[in-house]
Amino acid sequence: MKLYTYFRSSAAFRVRIALNLKGMTYQPEPVHLLRDGGRQRTAAFAAVNPQQLLPVLEHDGHYLTQSLAIIEYLDEVVAEPRLLPPDPPGRARVRSLALAIACEIHPLNNLRVLQYLTETLGLSDEQKNGWYRHWVETGLAAVERRLAAEPETGRHCHGDRPTLADCCLVPQVFNARRYGCDLSGVPTILRIHEQCMELEPFQKASPAAQPDAE
Amino acid sequence: MKLYTYFRSSAAFRVRIALNLKGMTYQPEPVHLLRDGGRQRTAAFAAVNPQQLLPVLEHDGHYLTQSLAIIEYLDEVVAEPRLLPPDPPGRARVRSLALAIACEIHPLNNLRVLQYLTETLGLSDEQKNGWYRHWVETGLAAVERRLAAEPETGRHCHGDRPTLADCCLVPQVFNARRYGCDLSGVPTILRIHEQCMELEPFQKASPAAQPDAE
Repeated sequence: MKLYTYFRSSAAFRVRIALNLKGMTYQPEPVHLLRDGGRQRTAAFAAVNPQQLLPVLEHDGHYLTQSLAIIEYLDEVVAEPRLLPPDPPGRARVRSLALAIACEIHPLNNLRVLQYLTETLGLSDEQKNGWYRHWVETGLAAVERRLAAEPETGRHCHGDRPTLADCCLVPQVFNARRYGCDLSGVPTILRIHEQCMELEPFQKASPAAQPDAE
Repeated sequence: MKLYTYFRSSAAFRVRIALNLKGMTYQPEPVHLLRDGGRQRTAAFAAVNPQQLLPVLEHDGHYLTQSLAIIEYLDEVVAEPRLLPPDPPGRARVRSLALAIACEIHPLNNLRVLQYLTETLGLSDEQKNGWYRHWVETGLAAVERRLAAEPETGRHCHGDRPTLADCCLVPQVFNARRYGCDLSGVPTILRIHEQCMELEPFQKASPAAQPDAE
């Protein structure tokens, strides 16, 4: 099993956490998103993923793309530990928290979007960073309101064991800190993040622990 | 069962298609995204969804959010017709196509993002529309490459019956046309879109068929 990854890609980070939680070993295949104008843009990588995005998981002859789809697949082929709860309302809650990050925050702040802001629209670095922080802070505040209010929240986003939601939350907090976002209003998120980072599967998946870390 | 919806919200459109495909009747509760500065921003609606986004499905005392999580839930509580195939690689493929739209295209083009571009960053309408078309055209081209190349594509995105992927594709084509995007390079997408729009569940879910249509 091979994972096309980049140490700083938060979508790849999500999948690395899930693989580690499942105890699955994999071969990392680093794709440098900045070198040579972005190695995800090469024809060789386009043959692996026509979307030219990370991560890609090669498993049983399949090239699986989109981090949430990959994690759902892992949860279907390896039963334990479960990354989604068994009950449909619980599953919907975990997925909606994951999507609140994967759809409402992360897409606005990935590399190609930031490049469009500065290169195509000619915005300043200050404007770009303001954009970044705005969507992270707005998005995490909405997630915080749910985590703080809903009784299903436990030591982790949903109960006391990590789920797909934690796989998404932790990389987003890493990104938020890297860009100096104000996290003073999201104590529940920070508490869950710390709880996760005490666990080896999360530590081993972190950017600094990757073979291609700089 | 009540669906908080807006006729032009493409995320709500996805859920309307899924509800119609499942043959489930629901009560639409329109939330006007433009009137009064956006009625999703009221305290009353924040109590329904702290993310202040559409759609929300109220079912069995649960308030379900995030369109893809809602559709997965519907597929779990009402078995037929299936909106996801039974095999894990097939499920991963359908989810990755859906996420390629829901994560890579739609979040960049929703109302609050377009408002940030013009109001906060002071960009012109021309720049805003260029942004819109860029992400739609780039994103749909990547989806087209997969649909055209992969043998699993049939009359619909995955085989000959509609799935979660078609629920996402059709609203995105509606949006693309509304903004005058160039769709000449995506013939497979247009073929599947036409195929879908021959079916009553898609027709009944379309913006013009909604009670709040303008």
